[in-house]
Amino acid sequence: MKKSIGAKPLPMPAPVWVVGTYDADGKPNIMTASWAGICCSRPPCVYVSLRKATYSYANIVARQAYTISIPSVGQVRQADYAGIVSGRDEDKFLAAGLTAVASDLVDAPYVGEFAVVMECRVLHVLKIGLHTQFVGEVLDIKVDEEVQGKDGAPDTEKTAPFVFTGGEYRALGEYIGEPFRIGRQT
Amino acid sequence: MKKSIGAKPLPMPAPVWVVGTYDADGKPNIMTASWAGICCSRPPCVYVSLRKATYSYANIVARQAYTISIPSVGQVRQADYAGIVSGRDEDKFLAAGLTAVASDLVDAPYVGEFAVVMECRVLHVLKIGLHTQFVGEVLDIKVDEEVQGKDGAPDTEKTAPFVFTGGEYRALGEYIGEPFRIGRQT
Repeated sequence: MKKSIGAKPLPMPAPVWVVGTYDADGKPNIMTASWAGICCSRPPCVYVSLRKATYSYANIVARQAYTISIPSVGQVRQADYAGIVSGRDEDKFLAAGLTAVASDLVDAPYVGEFAVVMECRVLHVLKIGLHTQFVGEVLDIKVDEEVQGKDGAPDTEKTAPFVFTGGEYRALGEYIGEPFRIGRQT
Repeated sequence: MKKSIGAKPLPMPAPVWVVGTYDADGKPNIMTASWAGICCSRPPCVYVSLRKATYSYANIVARQAYTISIPSVGQVRQADYAGIVSGRDEDKFLAAGLTAVASDLVDAPYVGEFAVVMECRVLHVLKIGLHTQFVGEVLDIKVDEEVQGKDGAPDTEKTAPFVFTGGEYRALGEYIGEPFRIGRQT
């Protein structure tokens, strides 16, 4: 029996992505977002949805660019920290002991210590409500050699990304099937 | 040392959501999407990005509504199947042994056997490239009583959602921290 629980944003599960930007003075900033994901295959596009009140919002509007750096389970404290504190109040790279690396493709920095990064230029800005969605074209993905699997793609066992379920951060668990194949047996 | 792997849509990890729609004849259809997620907290909004070639695309345009039904690990075959076959060719509810339940709020059906469903009316349609993004306002979430935890919210241990990493479906794994708290120790 299904019960209504009302209208709400239910993260089941959502990615944990760290958004890199420069402010007006060129100071690098990061913030963590889970209202984020892939929204187009060609051109490859991702989005992050941010509240206008965030420091990163104005940075993205001004520079029309951002990066996404993907933390691994061992970096959960730093990722969570970047979602709690505002760049208005603290130098989050410095406080979290992370290195701001300038992208050579877009006007934004990424996190040197995070193994997988995407460099994005803003394609669309969609004001929805409390959140505004920034759709970014992924101009390149850079991956630490140590976590690359076949074809250079990130190996999930090595990148060890995690997800946000609302109340918890969770690592990825067991393999349960091969996409576009396991369903053929239905 | 980071190595460039080029511009691509990299799912690290992405949700596995089953989109419910009616076609022009009122036949219920499902398709599985991973270019999907939450994009606004107030009003609560989600999105799915679909290729125009899909059967669901025209259904959503015509009805301005869709549902999201979230499969659990035990339903991975049915979810994968719904992403392989087109509703033009098969009655996917029938073939997968699933029940189409009419939403009482929007003009779309959801999957009765999946424990968590969201009922959405289309708020924005954003054409990006190969994919078009349908931003839907979540009018209600309905959850099977057996998987509800405190406050009626879905309990991740019981709903057992899974993610798409590109080459794999993966269950969720161990708890690694409390959001908005673990980072305070940084």
